[in-house]
Amino acid sequence: MSFKYKYARPALTVDCVVFGLLEDCLSVLLIQRAAPPFQGDWALPGGFVEMDETLEEAARRELQEETGLQDLFLEQLYTFGDVKRDPRERIVSVAYYGLVRQAAHPPHAGSDARSVAWHPVDELPSLAFDHSQILAKASERLQAKVQYQPIGFELLPQKFTLTQLQILYETILGRSFDKRNFRKKIMGMDLLESLEEFSSGPHRAARLYRFNRRRYQMLLKKGFHFEL
Amino acid sequence: MSFKYKYARPALTVDCVVFGLLEDCLSVLLIQRAAPPFQGDWALPGGFVEMDETLEEAARRELQEETGLQDLFLEQLYTFGDVKRDPRERIVSVAYYGLVRQAAHPPHAGSDARSVAWHPVDELPSLAFDHSQILAKASERLQAKVQYQPIGFELLPQKFTLTQLQILYETILGRSFDKRNFRKKIMGMDLLESLEEFSSGPHRAARLYRFNRRRYQMLLKKGFHFEL
Repeated sequence: MSFKYKYARPALTVDCVVFGLLEDCLSVLLIQRAAPPFQGDWALPGGFVEMDETLEEAARRELQEETGLQDLFLEQLYTFGDVKRDPRERIVSVAYYGLVRQAAHPPHAGSDARSVAWHPVDELPSLAFDHSQILAKASERLQAKVQYQPIGFELLPQKFTLTQLQILYETILGRSFDKRNFRKKIMGMDLLESLEEFSSGPHRAARLYRFNRRRYQMLLKKGFHFEL
Repeated sequence: MSFKYKYARPALTVDCVVFGLLEDCLSVLLIQRAAPPFQGDWALPGGFVEMDETLEEAARRELQEETGLQDLFLEQLYTFGDVKRDPRERIVSVAYYGLVRQAAHPPHAGSDARSVAWHPVDELPSLAFDHSQILAKASERLQAKVQYQPIGFELLPQKFTLTQLQILYETILGRSFDKRNFRKKIMGMDLLESLEEFSSGPHRAARLYRFNRRRYQMLLKKGFHFEL
């Protein structure tokens, strides 16, 4: 079976940059390519858009097929359309970026048995195609967006300590915050619920907090701006 | 001649939302469709992506062919890929938004003699396809972006009065600013060059200013953030 068109058409794919925290380290999910081109190289999960699905549906389907991830925060990033970005033929790719609470979503290799792994963003292997460029755009977007939308919480467990939250922001933005100012700013926005639960583990027990999404939605309607 | 592929492919287009100021009124450039579907309706300029051009090149080419506009500020906005967004077949469209200094770029109808016109964004006709949705996304992006990047200057003449600048921001953001605070904030960023020239016209002559792009680039490197 084949499909005939009067004019040439680029192929259309989606690619996904999924960020997660691996032991406080901002990491990205990559798959190792089993076939040429770039055989053996690491690449972003992704694939061709089917005719009966939206672009976001394609991105979610490919992510699930290739990495087992589902139900994550996912937003469109940018569309990459340089003429020679794929050595085989003209392929235009709509990139998405996603955020996961890592503990809840351990990746597994897809049915085609390629390996899937989290890689710290500051120790990346060389990537196939223009995927380094896509990743750079996603990092830039993430850095910009965490400062004016509370999307950072998508990377944390549902219940977290203020130290975890501060480390998250420091990791993403690549700079350190004064502990007192950071807490004052965060608590001043009145978006966190203080819980009667405490962290366990090697460190001194610290109070756990939860992000209150309903309250955020309510504040938004009143013209509130999240700003870190 | 025809092109055969093993799998079905969506067609790929670009669509452009171009904003300009028409007598202090934020307006968008539309073309009237000469053929079905949506014959006679207004739509965003745009068309099919050629195999040997990037997405931005396609957007610039279509804009020039259909409206005569060239050399404008143009950025990728979002890619629209709903399965049934075009009644003819599956068409995925990469949308761009542009900003022009209106006086310098009067639009003319394309070679196919369809009409081209500026429409105030608050008095829009009903638009073809999902173009209202694309326009809404572009307005949202413009509102967000003028507040943290000095792109608003792309809409003004090279030399402008502070009143023109304030009206521009008020028009885009849909709210009014206190004149003293607005001037303090703008002048505080030290991005405007005060000229020894004055406006002419029916109003009292006011000093003209120019945006200093080189200074902005320099400040950026030092970690400066434009913020209105």
